[in-house]
Amino acid sequence: MITHIHHINFLVQNLENAVIQYQKLPGIGPFEFDQLEQRAVRTAKTRLGDAWLVLVQPLDKESIPARHMREHGEGFFLISLGTNNLENCLESVKKSKIGLIGSQRAGLDNWQVQDLDPKAFFSTQIQLTEDN
Amino acid sequence: MITHIHHINFLVQNLENAVIQYQKLPGIGPFEFDQLEQRAVRTAKTRLGDAWLVLVQPLDKESIPARHMREHGEGFFLISLGTNNLENCLESVKKSKIGLIGSQRAGLDNWQVQDLDPKAFFSTQIQLTEDN
Repeated sequence: MITHIHHINFLVQNLENAVIQYQKLPGIGPFEFDQLEQRAVRTAKTRLGDAWLVLVQPLDKESIPARHMREHGEGFFLISLGTNNLENCLESVKKSKIGLIGSQRAGLDNWQVQDLDPKAFFSTQIQLTEDN
Repeated sequence: MITHIHHINFLVQNLENAVIQYQKLPGIGPFEFDQLEQRAVRTAKTRLGDAWLVLVQPLDKESIPARHMREHGEGFFLISLGTNNLENCLESVKKSKIGLIGSQRAGLDNWQVQDLDPKAFFSTQIQLTEDN
């Protein structure tokens, strides 16, 4: 089952500027920089309670995150809900006729993730995750 | 300082339909329904790790949440970051020249909240909170 918010992604045009700005908030940071080639993004993440705050800068104009930013602007991209068993959760989701987008893939730090159909959640992109 | 994600708000047109849909996710729910008259919204919230997931249905077309939904559609509205001392955090934020939107107000359950200027965070509406 779902146990917590695993991470939340915000799209930004310039990762360095975004990190500087977020670190002005007391208690936010330091950020770890990374790159996720399968999604063509650079990322910077920091711990926030039991969640990660992840800033995402698209690198390739044709990637899914870049297309989302072109359509909706900078800001919220997706919320990833942490599960204690991704396979069991997905079985349950499929029984409820909630669609999946694509197939399971590796996220940052080899997090195993599966995107759900945002139409099922009133345009909110929800993803299920299990840490490996 | 900021310690965790206190709550995250998603705008929906129909609260009952949204709750039914979210509760299809294993581990999500039950939701508590409430109303916040100062913001002209109905809400349904559920615990998600150390955060609250809050679904928000605007009631008055001229309210701030309703205007946001008209402009951006359903979906992400704001992220509220929990602090252990809101006054101290706001002092620090002001020193960093980050603007505030409006003044401190009571949120759901008398949470004390202060909205920050979304322009400072690349269009993301961030709010600071302290539980009372």
